[in-house]
Amino acid sequence: MPIRVFRAMLPVFFSVLVVPLTAQDIKWHDIKPLGVEGRGFDKTSVFFDRLPAAAEKLVRSPVWSLSRHSAGMCVRFVTGATTLHARWTLRSERLAMPHMPATGVSGVDLYVRDNRGRWRWLACGRPTQFPTNSVRLVTGIPAGRREFLLYLPLYNGVTAVEVGTPAGTSLDKAPARPASHRKPILFYGTSITHGACASRPGMPHPAILGRRFERPVINLGFSGNGRMEIELADLLATLDPVVYVLDCLPNMDARAVARRVEPFVHRLRKSRPKTPILLVEDRSYADSFLVTSKRKRNLDSRRALKAAWDNLKKAGVGGLHYLEGEHLLGDDGEATVDSSHPTDLGFVRQAEAFARVLGPILKATE
Amino acid sequence: MPIRVFRAMLPVFFSVLVVPLTAQDIKWHDIKPLGVEGRGFDKTSVFFDRLPAAAEKLVRSPVWSLSRHSAGMCVRFVTGATTLHARWTLRSERLAMPHMPATGVSGVDLYVRDNRGRWRWLACGRPTQFPTNSVRLVTGIPAGRREFLLYLPLYNGVTAVEVGTPAGTSLDKAPARPASHRKPILFYGTSITHGACASRPGMPHPAILGRRFERPVINLGFSGNGRMEIELADLLATLDPVVYVLDCLPNMDARAVARRVEPFVHRLRKSRPKTPILLVEDRSYADSFLVTSKRKRNLDSRRALKAAWDNLKKAGVGGLHYLEGEHLLGDDGEATVDSSHPTDLGFVRQAEAFARVLGPILKATE
Repeated sequence: MPIRVFRAMLPVFFSVLVVPLTAQDIKWHDIKPLGVEGRGFDKTSVFFDRLPAAAEKLVRSPVWSLSRHSAGMCVRFVTGATTLHARWTLRSERLAMPHMPATGVSGVDLYVRDNRGRWRWLACGRPTQFPTNSVRLVTGIPAGRREFLLYLPLYNGVTAVEVGTPAGTSLDKAPARPASHRKPILFYGTSITHGACASRPGMPHPAILGRRFERPVINLGFSGNGRMEIELADLLATLDPVVYVLDCLPNMDARAVARRVEPFVHRLRKSRPKTPILLVEDRSYADSFLVTSKRKRNLDSRRALKAAWDNLKKAGVGGLHYLEGEHLLGDDGEATVDSSHPTDLGFVRQAEAFARVLGPILKATE
Repeated sequence: MPIRVFRAMLPVFFSVLVVPLTAQDIKWHDIKPLGVEGRGFDKTSVFFDRLPAAAEKLVRSPVWSLSRHSAGMCVRFVTGATTLHARWTLRSERLAMPHMPATGVSGVDLYVRDNRGRWRWLACGRPTQFPTNSVRLVTGIPAGRREFLLYLPLYNGVTAVEVGTPAGTSLDKAPARPASHRKPILFYGTSITHGACASRPGMPHPAILGRRFERPVINLGFSGNGRMEIELADLLATLDPVVYVLDCLPNMDARAVARRVEPFVHRLRKSRPKTPILLVEDRSYADSFLVTSKRKRNLDSRRALKAAWDNLKKAGVGGLHYLEGEHLLGDDGEATVDSSHPTDLGFVRQAEAFARVLGPILKATE
């Protein structure tokens, strides 16, 4: 029964498409030498880790575990191939979560620069097994060299990722970004930053914003564990982003906000006196219009963040920016799967709200 | 590792919330006597089937299998309970699909009428096991009688669904819809109508439109199998909806469109001379800007549907309406998970496009 229904689910696809290539016809290209964007740290234990090996002794164990997810990492490359494959090896056999599909948790996601120079979604690599998946991403695109962007899994780690092209075709590193757009946007946050519950790795707001502003993005979202502990400030301070986005309120109560935000920002400012810092309020729980305790939690956390912001301003800390949470996910209550985590609908709305404040900040740095 | 990460994923929730009720404190209410909306046919083999038992011999076997999914069914009820539970028993152990989470495939989804009379999302019941799931949907809402709306699984069948309230509380059938809004909107279509790949059962466009227009909805989407076979016209003709929405192009090529649309509409018109019929073009494949074969498929199918439409008009068939497919999912290419199936983002956009043409049709019937 499951198999039968799944087959029925397949679209009535075109017999006109190309005969599938067999394994020996594919040339595999390891993405590591192509330059992986979104890796903040070089000295990692596994190449696709999000924190340096040394962090294992500094951060709480869940933060360390979660840092081994490849959230936010991607690779840009150029090829004239008209068929593209992906092969990637996962670290955890949990391919999906009950409220987030395997495509988002453990899949890869391909974009291409269109003839107007904008990134357009092209194909998602669907994981169906553990540890290695090998899929044909796209075929039958017109001849011509193009720039592609492939995102890695959000809630799983990877040990190897390769792009496949037909034997005899080449695949090259993409041109470096212009100097004005080389510094990454750094997002530090919770499961929402981490990417729950996007349908594909290209859909969390950090990824959308990276495409929109043509910037590398470092995603340091740690599901349930974005709590602004001081050791994270030290780790963040070793990086040199164009802006720090601090978005931890969904994992902190008002007391934690009152205790941790100011020291965290002061510590960051000590090492990075001029880098803009954007403080973000928690999005409204989608059920908070009726569930009193959740409404209270939103309001208390925001009040605490506003107080911290006022104190930081009074203390003369410059370069601070603020984004209110109330309307981050829109106003219809439809943008989450579980009141907390955005779907693609919520992420697109959230990206719009972030873009309105990030746009001017980034513009000022160019 | 999977368990540890999953625990880390849980929000840092409020110790302030109520102590969980134990099983013996819950009073379970079978939803069947409350009146299930979206059931087109009474004489079904299993209560929650979407086609009558007699259809098993009339339709192809995949259509019959898929008709046993509870897509589009929901129940309205009224209660003053401040905590609500759901318990439902699934028919298939396939809880999720690789590109659609378990919450959408096999979950239940709760809305509540807010104090302005509009439906607002409130809670999703997350399936984690087979066959029976029992979850607390919501707790801690203010006292007061309210109307609720619970949607059933999209890509799974159910044999039993119950709503739980604290012992000693009552739960009643919701008031009947006003006479002007009693006839259902009938959607006949493909996997997209069926609900792939919504994150929750309340998010496919038929469900969104049902809430928006305050109408019952009958969802006859059959994944991969919405092909306008004449026996489906006969089945549809036995129903008396306010409008027929025919949205099968994603499962038909141009030849099938040319062969089947006109006879299907004529057959429907014979039994239902006055019911408005909305013909819908296929949505653009999200990769069709580059994948030539998919672009061609979109264009060929639409050309064939337009030709059928012209012929029907020439033949004097009245009450026909038409919805173009090009922009159903917006223009940024982000609204699907796999080029074909909308995410919640795509469904919200599609609902907007449908509402623009359905609004006037429905208005004219009131």
